[in-house]
Amino acid sequence: MDLRLDGAALTAWLVDTPSVSGEEGPLTDAIEDALRGLPHLTVHRDGNTVVARTTLGRAERVILAGHVDTVPIAGNLPSRVEGSRLYGCGTTDMKSGVAVQLRLAASVTSPGRDVTYVFYDCEEVAADRNGLLRLSRNRPDLLAGDFAVLMEPSSAEIEGGCQGTLRADVVVAGRRAHTARSWMGRNAIHEAGAVLDLLREYTPRQPEVDGLRYHEGLNAVGIRGGVAGNVVPDECVVTVNYRFAPDRTGAQAAQYVRSLFSAWPVEVLDVADGARPGLGQPAAAEFIAAVGGTPRPKLGWTDVARFSALGIPAVNYGPGVSEIAHTPGEYVEIGKIAECESRLRAWLDGA
Amino acid sequence: MDLRLDGAALTAWLVDTPSVSGEEGPLTDAIEDALRGLPHLTVHRDGNTVVARTTLGRAERVILAGHVDTVPIAGNLPSRVEGSRLYGCGTTDMKSGVAVQLRLAASVTSPGRDVTYVFYDCEEVAADRNGLLRLSRNRPDLLAGDFAVLMEPSSAEIEGGCQGTLRADVVVAGRRAHTARSWMGRNAIHEAGAVLDLLREYTPRQPEVDGLRYHEGLNAVGIRGGVAGNVVPDECVVTVNYRFAPDRTGAQAAQYVRSLFSAWPVEVLDVADGARPGLGQPAAAEFIAAVGGTPRPKLGWTDVARFSALGIPAVNYGPGVSEIAHTPGEYVEIGKIAECESRLRAWLDGA
Repeated sequence: MDLRLDGAALTAWLVDTPSVSGEEGPLTDAIEDALRGLPHLTVHRDGNTVVARTTLGRAERVILAGHVDTVPIAGNLPSRVEGSRLYGCGTTDMKSGVAVQLRLAASVTSPGRDVTYVFYDCEEVAADRNGLLRLSRNRPDLLAGDFAVLMEPSSAEIEGGCQGTLRADVVVAGRRAHTARSWMGRNAIHEAGAVLDLLREYTPRQPEVDGLRYHEGLNAVGIRGGVAGNVVPDECVVTVNYRFAPDRTGAQAAQYVRSLFSAWPVEVLDVADGARPGLGQPAAAEFIAAVGGTPRPKLGWTDVARFSALGIPAVNYGPGVSEIAHTPGEYVEIGKIAECESRLRAWLDGA
Repeated sequence: MDLRLDGAALTAWLVDTPSVSGEEGPLTDAIEDALRGLPHLTVHRDGNTVVARTTLGRAERVILAGHVDTVPIAGNLPSRVEGSRLYGCGTTDMKSGVAVQLRLAASVTSPGRDVTYVFYDCEEVAADRNGLLRLSRNRPDLLAGDFAVLMEPSSAEIEGGCQGTLRADVVVAGRRAHTARSWMGRNAIHEAGAVLDLLREYTPRQPEVDGLRYHEGLNAVGIRGGVAGNVVPDECVVTVNYRFAPDRTGAQAAQYVRSLFSAWPVEVLDVADGARPGLGQPAAAEFIAAVGGTPRPKLGWTDVARFSALGIPAVNYGPGVSEIAHTPGEYVEIGKIAECESRLRAWLDGA
């Protein structure tokens, strides 16, 4: 990895070094090697997470954090440039943000605030594998700070707070029988149609929280059922993902899902609280003043909620385009990479 | 294996030697070993299929055939006797029938008609793995005969013909998106609800064919979909199993399924024609006269259709209870094992 590459070229290099969740080792090694060569940074490693810090004794410390993993590759590698855009798996979510972090880490040698750069693994999978969560348990001292910027895709606009997320299994039972005499049994897959009916009829809430309007969502993200090709199945499990606005707690979200699917047993698999935007807090307000623009609500769950739970105000701010994250056609506007970098550089230098 | 055991004890021994489809090796070895010790039989093996034949030069030859595999074990082993019933995986479908075959093979040393006993594998799985089909291709000479009795569960009543069976995948497409912005995508699992609606609304045909009334069925036997816990899935596949009366060919059945699910691509996975009852044919009529009772329609697909395709009239006749085949609570009435054996013995001896 060559940190002298410009932001777009460095993003392309990161994208062409695949790092699907759980397979971040080689990319993490490259990041660690590159950062260990920089004398103004102290580098730590925890699993496939790397932390690099300035230790200048400044009055304040800020955190720039980003995840290095991506969703599964969907025929969208290697990266390619088309017009003003760079396409490929992870361009938007969020290797362009990681490129900005890396270039700032390499070149901002004497910032006005001490800076902690966090590069972490397993953000795109179940919450208990999240590298930032693991780091907060293993080395909470490395996450100390006054304010955090999470480099999640936001089109280089500040996005406040985040929605919570909950996954649950809705378990539909039936009774097995030979399909030649299906009236002797009860088909659990057919009955799961009633679960899908509720999902198709669902109307999302759009509450306003601290001045920003959120937009909820409830989706089946998995379905499985079947015993054999000639057996009426006795179980069908629908896995749902509920994205809830930050005016609801995780416990309230679980209560909602249980009551919606009250006809069946519901097993909550994991739940992560959202974060209220909290943009009126001093550290957040100062960042907004320095970077400019009008804050928007963050719809996706992001690790700002993890910083929020640690008592650290945090916002999302990155060059990617959140609306196309996790799609095979994801891309980043190349101009946003330099724009995001220069604004952050001005903020870090100017403080 | 001890062929001197009575029918119930031999059935229990067969049940307690598990032989789920694809894992019939040890049981087949035991059957082959036992039959090779009998001087009046010539024994052949093809994979996990065993054929044992008398070669007395009789004017006619009949076939007694049964499969040795079972559906997956469902907490119903070892076997146990309760009152007049023997419970356990395969008791009804169809190790009680196999026990009758084995006892007849061992003891009917000079039948009036030559007899071919066929013990075959992989009946409970995809048609292309079926041991009888494989044997008909590898050694058609071993399947020559004038009439066949398939020992499928029929409560010791003659069941004529069989329904056909077809499996097909209905493939529902969507568009991937991050679940936090699900309105950017189209959820394929939700749309599969429309497939399940059709299945829930389905009304089975019950046509009369050659004097017997059949009863069709259409069931989802599998469903799968999902990319990751935070991705709106772009595909959901519903596998359906259509059991059709023998007044329809396999091609007509495929046409029906394609037209019912015309909104989506349908991939036919396998199809097996049924068999019209054909009980008026001389060989079938003679068997009915010897064994007695009133023939019923066979609802499940059985390999009588394979014999029918080979030009050999065939009926289903066995001690098991077809209505509870493939259920965890399957059992066989112990008295039916001896009844079935004695009627077949009288028929074989008396001819």
